[in-house]
Amino acid sequence: MIKDNSLIYGMRPVIEALNAGKEIDKLMLQHGLKGELLPELRRLIKELDIPFQYVPVEKLNRLVRGNHQGVVCFISPISFQPVENLLMSAFEKGETPLFVILDRVTDVRNLGAIARSAECAGAHGLIIPEKGSAPVSADAVKTSAGALANLPVHRSKNLKETIDYLKSSGLSIVAASEKGTTPYYNVPLTGPVALIMGSEEDGVSPEYLRRCDHVVNIPMRGNTGSLNVSVATGIMLFEVVRQQVSEQ
Amino acid sequence: MIKDNSLIYGMRPVIEALNAGKEIDKLMLQHGLKGELLPELRRLIKELDIPFQYVPVEKLNRLVRGNHQGVVCFISPISFQPVENLLMSAFEKGETPLFVILDRVTDVRNLGAIARSAECAGAHGLIIPEKGSAPVSADAVKTSAGALANLPVHRSKNLKETIDYLKSSGLSIVAASEKGTTPYYNVPLTGPVALIMGSEEDGVSPEYLRRCDHVVNIPMRGNTGSLNVSVATGIMLFEVVRQQVSEQ
Repeated sequence: MIKDNSLIYGMRPVIEALNAGKEIDKLMLQHGLKGELLPELRRLIKELDIPFQYVPVEKLNRLVRGNHQGVVCFISPISFQPVENLLMSAFEKGETPLFVILDRVTDVRNLGAIARSAECAGAHGLIIPEKGSAPVSADAVKTSAGALANLPVHRSKNLKETIDYLKSSGLSIVAASEKGTTPYYNVPLTGPVALIMGSEEDGVSPEYLRRCDHVVNIPMRGNTGSLNVSVATGIMLFEVVRQQVSEQ
Repeated sequence: MIKDNSLIYGMRPVIEALNAGKEIDKLMLQHGLKGELLPELRRLIKELDIPFQYVPVEKLNRLVRGNHQGVVCFISPISFQPVENLLMSAFEKGETPLFVILDRVTDVRNLGAIARSAECAGAHGLIIPEKGSAPVSADAVKTSAGALANLPVHRSKNLKETIDYLKSSGLSIVAASEKGTTPYYNVPLTGPVALIMGSEEDGVSPEYLRRCDHVVNIPMRGNTGSLNVSVATGIMLFEVVRQQVSEQ
């Protein structure tokens, strides 16, 4: 499942990558780009729903030494999966679905460490938003100690809709947040559950907190005030394992 | 408590730093070093029990652009504490002593993240060996999110003796290891406890495992096989908190 992390540039090579069905992490177009192949590229971007952005030419020049012709794209080292597949695979295994949803976790090493913990806890998938997340880059794969080769990842275009879908599929949505009033170990986590963990900066967004069945806190002592998000995710995931094993 | 992380070089400046009582993280001497101030330096190293090593001149040349005169030392950004002080401070606060002992954790970011989790869990100190540990560098302080300004650190010359001291002081010594047969949540952690966490490579050394009251495992699913040590430490620490709070 792991492929080489790489960068493709130039109008023709990028069009070929899109046509070949390569998993695109991000595509960058130069502001004011022109050219006879541009309509074809635009059509593919739209048709395949590729995440893209316009950037100043200087940004592309910093990324690429060769002639990028105003187009650069990053190939993802993993294949993303539809959320339905993640859920299906849990049911097919006869296991209780367990997911981790990351709301704007932007540090690649945190993303990798979280994937590692999730796979170790037997989670069935990691869900990240298309925008505002750390990329599933080669560094993330490395930090995950190989877990990203085994743990399916869904990249959501709309995290609200994904959460609603999981909720309507019978999963309990549980966010860890400083705003939570119940300690995480006092909430039942033995059924199907999706954990939402928030950004390093400001935690889980209110729009997702509103959708939760439970907003829990991890009781803190000391003066530091908050845990690293990958540590907090590990604590949440292994509380699920603890409760599931204790129930058996 | 946080000071500038810095490097001091040259015979006279290093001698002055030692005389001024600066906390030395490590001192490096060039192989075959000579000079009229050398006996004074040697005397101070011995008297103050400074961790030092002989290195090839090339290593010093890479570290320092100026004239290092064969002597370079790293000043620690924090002050280390005697283990007795760590224990005393827990008792003075009327709290149940909780320590984290790191057996050759060599990644600076792991060390910092562990300090952060430990401080958040209300631990009374972090214990690292003098040799074979990640340094408590400015990067570690940064990754700790300030926790290393509040959490006392003891740098042990002999971890076996330190463990024996803690054991004789009434602490339960608990190591997390793949070799453990009891899940961590089935061991009582409400009393005074020192957790031993092992290196990223091969876990806790047998010589320390032998000294433990309990060797526990964190039950794993999936294929990855092991957690990141900072995540595993967070899970252990917050299990202590969970048990302590549940008992109240």
